[in-house]
Amino acid sequence: MTNNLVTKSATIDPSHKIEQPHKSSVIRFGVVGYGYWGPNIVRNLRSLEGCEVVGICDQTPAARKRIQAAHPGIPVHSDFHELVNSADIDAIAVITPAWTHFELAKAALKNGKHVFVEKPFTSKAAQAEELINLAEQKHLQIMVDHTFLFTGAVRKIKKLLKEGTLGKLYYYDSTRVNLGLFQHDCNVIWDLAPHDLSIMNDLIHKDAEAISATGQAHVNEFEDIAFITAYYPDKMIAHVNVNWISPVKVRTTLIGGEKKMLVWNDLEADEKLKIYDKGVDVKSQEGVYNLLVSYRSGDMWAPQVEQVEALRLELNYFIECIAKGHKASNDGVAGLRVVQMLEAASESLRHRGKLVYL
Amino acid sequence: MTNNLVTKSATIDPSHKIEQPHKSSVIRFGVVGYGYWGPNIVRNLRSLEGCEVVGICDQTPAARKRIQAAHPGIPVHSDFHELVNSADIDAIAVITPAWTHFELAKAALKNGKHVFVEKPFTSKAAQAEELINLAEQKHLQIMVDHTFLFTGAVRKIKKLLKEGTLGKLYYYDSTRVNLGLFQHDCNVIWDLAPHDLSIMNDLIHKDAEAISATGQAHVNEFEDIAFITAYYPDKMIAHVNVNWISPVKVRTTLIGGEKKMLVWNDLEADEKLKIYDKGVDVKSQEGVYNLLVSYRSGDMWAPQVEQVEALRLELNYFIECIAKGHKASNDGVAGLRVVQMLEAASESLRHRGKLVYL
Amino acid sequence: MTNNLVTKSATIDPSHKIEQPHKSSVIRFGVVGYGYWGPNIVRNLRSLEGCEVVGICDQTPAARKRIQAAHPGIPVHSDFHELVNSADIDAIAVITPAWTHFELAKAALKNGKHVFVEKPFTSKAAQAEELINLAEQKHLQIMVDHTFLFTGAVRKIKKLLKEGTLGKLYYYDSTRVNLGLFQHDCNVIWDLAPHDLSIMNDLIHKDAEAISATGQAHVNEFEDIAFITAYYPDKMIAHVNVNWISPVKVRTTLIGGEKKMLVWNDLEADEKLKIYDKGVDVKSQEGVYNLLVSYRSGDMWAPQVEQVEALRLELNYFIECIAKGHKASNDGVAGLRVVQMLEAASESLRHRGKLVYL
Amino acid sequence: MTNNLVTKSATIDPSHKIEQPHKSSVIRFGVVGYGYWGPNIVRNLRSLEGCEVVGICDQTPAARKRIQAAHPGIPVHSDFHELVNSADIDAIAVITPAWTHFELAKAALKNGKHVFVEKPFTSKAAQAEELINLAEQKHLQIMVDHTFLFTGAVRKIKKLLKEGTLGKLYYYDSTRVNLGLFQHDCNVIWDLAPHDLSIMNDLIHKDAEAISATGQAHVNEFEDIAFITAYYPDKMIAHVNVNWISPVKVRTTLIGGEKKMLVWNDLEADEKLKIYDKGVDVKSQEGVYNLLVSYRSGDMWAPQVEQVEALRLELNYFIECIAKGHKASNDGVAGLRVVQMLEAASESLRHRGKLVYL
Repeated sequence: MTNNLVTKSATIDPSHKIEQPHKSSVIRFGVVGYGYWGPNIVRNLRSLEGCEVVGICDQTPAARKRIQAAHPGIPVHSDFHELVNSADIDAIAVITPAWTHFELAKAALKNGKHVFVEKPFTSKAAQAEELINLAEQKHLQIMVDHTFLFTGAVRKIKKLLKEGTLGKLYYYDSTRVNLGLFQHDCNVIWDLAPHDLSIMNDLIHKDAEAISATGQAHVNEFEDIAFITAYYPDKMIAHVNVNWISPVKVRTTLIGGEKKMLVWNDLEADEKLKIYDKGVDVKSQEGVYNLLVSYRSGDMWAPQVEQVEALRLELNYFIECIAKGHKASNDGVAGLRVVQMLEAASESLRHRGKLVYL
Repeated sequence: MTNNLVTKSATIDPSHKIEQPHKSSVIRFGVVGYGYWGPNIVRNLRSLEGCEVVGICDQTPAARKRIQAAHPGIPVHSDFHELVNSADIDAIAVITPAWTHFELAKAALKNGKHVFVEKPFTSKAAQAEELINLAEQKHLQIMVDHTFLFTGAVRKIKKLLKEGTLGKLYYYDSTRVNLGLFQHDCNVIWDLAPHDLSIMNDLIHKDAEAISATGQAHVNEFEDIAFITAYYPDKMIAHVNVNWISPVKVRTTLIGGEKKMLVWNDLEADEKLKIYDKGVDVKSQEGVYNLLVSYRSGDMWAPQVEQVEALRLELNYFIECIAKGHKASNDGVAGLRVVQMLEAASESLRHRGKLVYL
Repeated sequence: MTNNLVTKSATIDPSHKIEQPHKSSVIRFGVVGYGYWGPNIVRNLRSLEGCEVVGICDQTPAARKRIQAAHPGIPVHSDFHELVNSADIDAIAVITPAWTHFELAKAALKNGKHVFVEKPFTSKAAQAEELINLAEQKHLQIMVDHTFLFTGAVRKIKKLLKEGTLGKLYYYDSTRVNLGLFQHDCNVIWDLAPHDLSIMNDLIHKDAEAISATGQAHVNEFEDIAFITAYYPDKMIAHVNVNWISPVKVRTTLIGGEKKMLVWNDLEADEKLKIYDKGVDVKSQEGVYNLLVSYRSGDMWAPQVEQVEALRLELNYFIECIAKGHKASNDGVAGLRVVQMLEAASESLRHRGKLVYL
Repeated sequence: MTNNLVTKSATIDPSHKIEQPHKSSVIRFGVVGYGYWGPNIVRNLRSLEGCEVVGICDQTPAARKRIQAAHPGIPVHSDFHELVNSADIDAIAVITPAWTHFELAKAALKNGKHVFVEKPFTSKAAQAEELINLAEQKHLQIMVDHTFLFTGAVRKIKKLLKEGTLGKLYYYDSTRVNLGLFQHDCNVIWDLAPHDLSIMNDLIHKDAEAISATGQAHVNEFEDIAFITAYYPDKMIAHVNVNWISPVKVRTTLIGGEKKMLVWNDLEADEKLKIYDKGVDVKSQEGVYNLLVSYRSGDMWAPQVEQVEALRLELNYFIECIAKGHKASNDGVAGLRVVQMLEAASESLRHRGKLVYL
């Protein structure tokens, strides 16, 4: 990753009110892929001002039928090139399996389209770098769909960290387990961990130095359970527990800081975030055995978390970035970082925990 | 660990009714250490038939005061040797900090006393081996206080596994986190993980092959957060998440099997165990992409868990093992195995996840 | 309520597979009311075979706009009479405020339409009786939208009761509280209790004998918190706690039986139902003080609950009842019974708990 | 209840630091009844300064054996009169079945002893009044054991109400259900409701005006499930749900106020209290239908609750009241008030919800 990749820093705060871009600059979208996630992309794009959906593409006839039923007025395509080659399209949303992202995004960029790419950005870091360079040359935008960054919970945590509420960060410990959905082309790390890695990177604001991962495949050749440790500077440590064969669904993250600690339970309807006035106070005295460790335990506080559709906020931010020429915070570089960590984790996992430097 | 260490297999099932040993063979106990755990040892020993407490020792005057107040009739000592050298004592309970176990247990064994040793058995595997050999030579019993093995929950899980309810085991994933108690002589692994390691070994009935561990120290020189992966044969994987600086207390273990899956939440008053008829069925077809993975989801079942005081059951089992000359299942060898895993985990942790073979 | 109201018993089990009626007898629906619940009615009717939606009516321009946007092909009306007078309509769904049900349903029945009426059936029992008689005369169907009866949870409970799993019923105790939604035309009883009353009647299969209710209005003239006790034969007692000004949302029902007890927590994603092998065994001896009461405590069991959209199942059942000429179990008589209980509860509440016989 | 019963108002705040009374005024206690609760009374009295236990009495030989084992130095009696007649005793703690309270407390007062009486104070209001008058004449103290008032949770709630945090009170809604313990001499109201009634009275600081109660007996002649509504002035309403035959244990109280609302879950280890910034704002406009009701929803806050043994605090308060001649807040009058409400509830229950004025 060379420095020239980072040119114009993102100055847009995704948390602020949605401002609609100028009517004159309506972004015309083509959407590729109408499987599980694609319908949400189309629905949100259609509900936003400043853009319109001018074509949707999917290779399977069944998906095309569903497109026609849900969006009667919009042209449906079976061949991706019809969208990429269209002069009427400004941006392509790539909502297909991960291993197809590179080829599709590359073709889109080459044809002068901005791209919005489903996570993980690409299957290999080298591919992500190539796309980033291509976008730079063409002055085009890449946004990687790290949707969680736009949820009320993550935005609130980010605000709390920015304000110093938690103090110096000690650890980030996420558990993301449930039964299924088995993928046919990747292990549980590539499926579930991108959420945590993108959130960690966004919150910690430092680059992880090294990764150790362990795991096991039971059902087919792909690991269905895995544990990732990421070492960050300043003794910050992150851990991600991902599992496709858990009997219960868990989406819980503990974030420990010097001043306060936080629990984020994403399955709670209300009270997703709880901030604990708990911690450890250390008074150094002479000698190791005289180190005084005392515990602090005070009130708990559950701030209200804004209930917005994260994807809507993210897509609006993409439109805004294009309209104003800003680079997004979840741009190709952020996506590349996650892919690098996924690669490192997979390599470490193959060697049973061996440390892999980033 | 040589074969001669394992001589006479334990045929006593700790789950069966407490049978009292013959009155003629009342075991006379000396208890060393009256800090946090010692009072529970004394209370239980005094309530059991087949044994009596004939002396308690602690180096600190405050503890000796507490002994006198709670147990007016029992002789109190400040010097350990008074217990070890007494001809009136058959067994010594060593309930002191881990780094003192070896010296105290060795002296007790040398003087012909059976020993009951708090977990972890010793600070080093070599020490544990020496104690085991010494006990063999002297025909004495060692029991390591792996109390959790005697809880209703673990005994129920063991029964379920024995009956094949879960099928082939896939994984064991334990989270054991809370605020404190910081130790002054060891990291969080040596403090909290012995529970999980002893349970894992007891349930899985196979020896782990290798360990990878990661973690970080924040408050003093000892790691306060750590993650251990143990690789067992046949693709079985175990993971332990231990943390001294968590804002919430968690004691949850997921156990995944081919047929069923289990959640053990030890903080639940009722319904500690939940067994889920959930899983993955695989039908192999031609080619990788044709592998059919389907999900099974049925009823959940929370068996009643016997509510007994585990420590009482364990101490009664110790008395019985002494009286009948049986070797305990949680004997020195079981204790050694845990110490070997703790050593391996600590070494791996120092090298940031490097695989350490056992 | 005269006996002639109940003519042909409903022999259709709503739990069985959805059978589609003959194509030749497609039921043409007009839907009146497109506020909060109306859109769900239309969406489900459109997705079912055996029926079609041929017109939707709402008095407010905003609602009509939403109809047009969501259902471009369907005629939109502002005047209810256009639907009622149409020869092309077989059935009318009345999804409007409760105080309008009578007038709308009566007009529909008079014009030979079957009616599907939102709960509560009517504002007064006398109105409900008039509608039932009218439908009888015209050989038309009335179904009252007691949606909860078609949920997987209630259907499972009904099955368990039918099989005698719980034994003789002791009590039904429901808590249904949350913040809002304040109604402008009724108190919390008329808003929330119809759910519980319809479920109770369906499960208990006996008529309540008398009702006592208490409550209080705080914010406006309508009670926002209320407690209803219904006395059933054979010492069965039911209690409903409804509250619009609760800080937390609770949807929990305890059902106690002689053999087993059940907890239904409708807010649980999984494990909505838990059946406890708990209870009281009584051995009568001589004299009151010698009555031996012992407690039973065994396993807990959470049966899998079918996840279906209850409303879809209910509407399909309505179509089937019309096609086959069966009377629905949630027909006008069932709706009348609920209205009678609501009237009794309101009268009792006004007199602070005074017993009102049904 | 005549006015002269209330002479000297309790100015002692039970929440303040425990101050030990003068050594010179050590209160000598006799304890009557060593069943379920008695041992806790004795243990706490023995651990407090300012008092000593000089005799314990129980009619059953088994209980006397247990006393001797646990408290070797203390004289054990089988005849209550030996304690009452002893010149060496200043105060009697009556920890026996409710129907014996009157006779025992009366004898103690007549013999010039202060009395600490288990809840409920007496079986009849007339008895309570007689005891209060007797104590007045003799210048003796009565404290009724409403232990819950001294828990950290109730004291915190009281503080919040005093500070106006919740605003004007709307409702108090308690659920106190579990399996057993069946009593042989009273129904579930007399067993469980005294807790709630004493807390309500203490928190609301107004006298309830009338009571309506419903319930049912299933297992023997005593009601095992009951629902009590108490009407307080100013539209404040209280509700208590008590049940001996519930499969799950619930101890949850909702308290709704104009400004904020509170949930007290006494079964939570931490976070027993949660205060919600939720509520309803009403803007009156012209006409009923124009009344604007809007919802407020903000942060949740769980204040730390002091963890003290409530009974210890209460007994210390009793000692202090005796030493300083203050009348306790939980004195005979407070106990009488609860008995009056229990009587009213039982009468209402017999008449199926009939309103009974207090």
